[in-house]
Amino acid sequence: MEDKLNQLKTILNEVADLNAASALLGWDQQTYMPAGSAEGRGNQLATLGQIAHIKFTSDEVGRLLEDLEPQVAQLDPDSDAARLVKVTRREYDKNTKVPTEWVAEFARVTTVGQQVWQEARIENNFARFQPYLEKIIDLRRQYAAIFAPYDHVYDPLLDDFEPGMKTAEVKEIFGKLRPQQVELIKAIADRPQVDDSFLRQTFAEQKQWDFGVEVITKMGYDWQHGRQDRSAHPFTTNFGIDDVRITTKFLPDFVSSAIFSTVHETGHALYEQGVDHALERTPLAGGASLGMHESQSRLWENLVGRSYPFWQHFYPRLQEFFPGQLGNVSLDAFYKGINKVQPSLIRIEADEATYNLHIMLRLELEIALIEGSLQVKDLPQAWNSRMQEYLGVTPTNDKNGVLQDIHWSGGMVGYFSTYALGNLISAQLWERINQDIPDLPDQIRKGEFSALLGWLRNNIHRHGAKYESQELVKRITGSKIDPAPYMRYLTDKFSKVYGF
Amino acid sequence: MEDKLNQLKTILNEVADLNAASALLGWDQQTYMPAGSAEGRGNQLATLGQIAHIKFTSDEVGRLLEDLEPQVAQLDPDSDAARLVKVTRREYDKNTKVPTEWVAEFARVTTVGQQVWQEARIENNFARFQPYLEKIIDLRRQYAAIFAPYDHVYDPLLDDFEPGMKTAEVKEIFGKLRPQQVELIKAIADRPQVDDSFLRQTFAEQKQWDFGVEVITKMGYDWQHGRQDRSAHPFTTNFGIDDVRITTKFLPDFVSSAIFSTVHETGHALYEQGVDHALERTPLAGGASLGMHESQSRLWENLVGRSYPFWQHFYPRLQEFFPGQLGNVSLDAFYKGINKVQPSLIRIEADEATYNLHIMLRLELEIALIEGSLQVKDLPQAWNSRMQEYLGVTPTNDKNGVLQDIHWSGGMVGYFSTYALGNLISAQLWERINQDIPDLPDQIRKGEFSALLGWLRNNIHRHGAKYESQELVKRITGSKIDPAPYMRYLTDKFSKVYGF
Repeated sequence: MEDKLNQLKTILNEVADLNAASALLGWDQQTYMPAGSAEGRGNQLATLGQIAHIKFTSDEVGRLLEDLEPQVAQLDPDSDAARLVKVTRREYDKNTKVPTEWVAEFARVTTVGQQVWQEARIENNFARFQPYLEKIIDLRRQYAAIFAPYDHVYDPLLDDFEPGMKTAEVKEIFGKLRPQQVELIKAIADRPQVDDSFLRQTFAEQKQWDFGVEVITKMGYDWQHGRQDRSAHPFTTNFGIDDVRITTKFLPDFVSSAIFSTVHETGHALYEQGVDHALERTPLAGGASLGMHESQSRLWENLVGRSYPFWQHFYPRLQEFFPGQLGNVSLDAFYKGINKVQPSLIRIEADEATYNLHIMLRLELEIALIEGSLQVKDLPQAWNSRMQEYLGVTPTNDKNGVLQDIHWSGGMVGYFSTYALGNLISAQLWERINQDIPDLPDQIRKGEFSALLGWLRNNIHRHGAKYESQELVKRITGSKIDPAPYMRYLTDKFSKVYGF
Repeated sequence: MEDKLNQLKTILNEVADLNAASALLGWDQQTYMPAGSAEGRGNQLATLGQIAHIKFTSDEVGRLLEDLEPQVAQLDPDSDAARLVKVTRREYDKNTKVPTEWVAEFARVTTVGQQVWQEARIENNFARFQPYLEKIIDLRRQYAAIFAPYDHVYDPLLDDFEPGMKTAEVKEIFGKLRPQQVELIKAIADRPQVDDSFLRQTFAEQKQWDFGVEVITKMGYDWQHGRQDRSAHPFTTNFGIDDVRITTKFLPDFVSSAIFSTVHETGHALYEQGVDHALERTPLAGGASLGMHESQSRLWENLVGRSYPFWQHFYPRLQEFFPGQLGNVSLDAFYKGINKVQPSLIRIEADEATYNLHIMLRLELEIALIEGSLQVKDLPQAWNSRMQEYLGVTPTNDKNGVLQDIHWSGGMVGYFSTYALGNLISAQLWERINQDIPDLPDQIRKGEFSALLGWLRNNIHRHGAKYESQELVKRITGSKIDPAPYMRYLTDKFSKVYGF
């Protein structure tokens, strides 16, 4: 078995190296690449992607998996070898079952689709985008059919982003969550609004940068195996476990944007930096799912980064950086300001309390589209009425309504729920962490994060992609993904911020 | 034929993309990569290099070349297609003739060799490095034998860096040059030394950067398809014709280092940026040889950048950047200072007048080593006596003597002459350019470089690697590489600087 396993690993290592190279090309494209070099970069990415795909989907990988599967069945199912074969099989089947013709057509339609979406959004013209979205939904239904039988036609789509997750599960989770979230928003809306105007002054970029570096260094970000750069859209990327990089966008007139974005991306980066080196250069090196990844970024951004103890430690330092802007703003006022809740039209600007509602709306609509119970032409109307129902606001046009997100135009159907699942998982983990580290708030108040990071490393990070998200959450907390801790967290926090 | 040619190009395009990705990985490694990420990067580079090698040396490429060769024989021999097949054949033969065992052994010995050389240099212990150099010379003799028959055993080594060049040719060129260079150095040494102490004050790095940007922007460096970064050792690299990057090292206490280094690297970059896009993603996209490349960097660095008209234009601006340091230094004093000649022990610190002698010494010694007329154990003695003979200085130890360069430890035997050939070609081109653009000095005095760059683009850059260096120089100047123009240039310039 050792021999076959090594043969498989050799191929997987090469594929991982090719993917790492592609990731670096992508990083460069978004940070330093000259404006006029996009065509060549496109060629390079296409070539590397194609070679990696051919290698990974080769008959040799198929034969090795067939040979290895009965053998690893004898091993501990949690062993690296057994999990490697299992996850590789899952990805191999996904990559080999889809016909080349579908892949080509999908690439063609989504490339044009994104282009048309960009123009349609500028023109506020949903009708223009409609035929492309219809085609994309149709292609995604065809895609789902390849993986029949399934419990629900949306399952194979969800599975691409959240392996193992079922439509019935997310429906149940969000079905419980939605009325409680709606009720919370209403309770907040009945209270006087908090002031956050002091966040919107002029804040020198270099000072924002330096403060952020201090924060994430204390969080445990490993600069020997990572770095920070600027980009138009913040992201985390990595080229192996030992090179995990974050990027940040700084707004000179809104100080909290870069702070929480930096902490958020560092949450992703700590996950990647914490994967067991035994998994390096295999499909197990990386987060378990988008939802698990988001649980780490959100945990650091919100449960840690927007908490009172966190700012008990860091606020005096932030005031030192910006005495003119924040010298006369009390810690309590600052804490309320960074936790202001304001139902709004745009998902990416949403606060912690309203964010999930933006997601649920999208999830419900895309399930209906894939099921066929909603037609694309009726989408704007469905969007707007749900916005009113969930958030109490109605888009003034499709630009700040149904046309706001890039995902569907690029064919990403099944993605959105992972954002909300990340929020739920983060709170569920947080309850467990606080049981295991009872003095965690005190530690955070002192700027000490090593016990927290150690807990995350031990329970989550080191496992990489060995376990699917539901399995991993259950191993840690004793139950599958559950919205109750998140609602407890939100209610507790915002009842104090807003006094109800 | 179109069909076969397209098949060949498809493979060559993929190889070019892989090489471009490797080059970006290398650029990142020397500019931004975190310190702890070297192992992963090594794996990625090894995988990409191996895949590119397998693709390029495949039987399919061999068959396509065989099919195409009789067909392109019917075409204009200067056509892109004919030249592509010719150059691909040359590289294919080089890459396929060398046995895998030799490649593995060479990689092993040079990896250890470089390590030992670094330590030996620190310890000033040639004896420690000696057995490794002996093994490397032996492997290089074996390498040459693979390409027998040849006129001279050193020919196949030279050919790796300067395709088509013969040992007899470089011997003849440098045989003429050496006595004249030695005589020139002696004439200079008899004159009072010029003062350059004003170059060695404190110069703020950002100002050095900004001045350099102004200079190379005027030279015509295309920032839409390139960028500048910092690195420990300055270099130029590219990922296609549309992404050509330079790096610079800034010394806070020696202003001329970064200026001339930036201009030098920009000379390389202008070459790569000027290649005809029809050659993109093929072995023809890039410079003709290391010597031709160096002719471009040296032309800009020395014949343009260290010329009086150049500083008539730029010196007032440099004085504006550094009024405290240079406000009281006259243009004439500055010009003499940046052209100071001082025989020294270290090649990379050598000035324009002495540089070639460092090269000739190395070239003669490595030819003798490969011929077997010199033993490695006798190398330090041979080095030191030649230093005294050519430059009038003797190394005080092997650290500043025979152990100073990395090249031999890495197996690069045949490389050195390209530095000096670049100098010679640059002056030969310069005479021709000044015939074609009679008012060039006036243009330079006005900071106008477009006619010069246009000339280089038209005569050299656009051809990429279509022509070998001797062929290209002859097409342009009417004669092969000739040391006379360079000696005329040096004598004319330094007789004025030193007044003899």
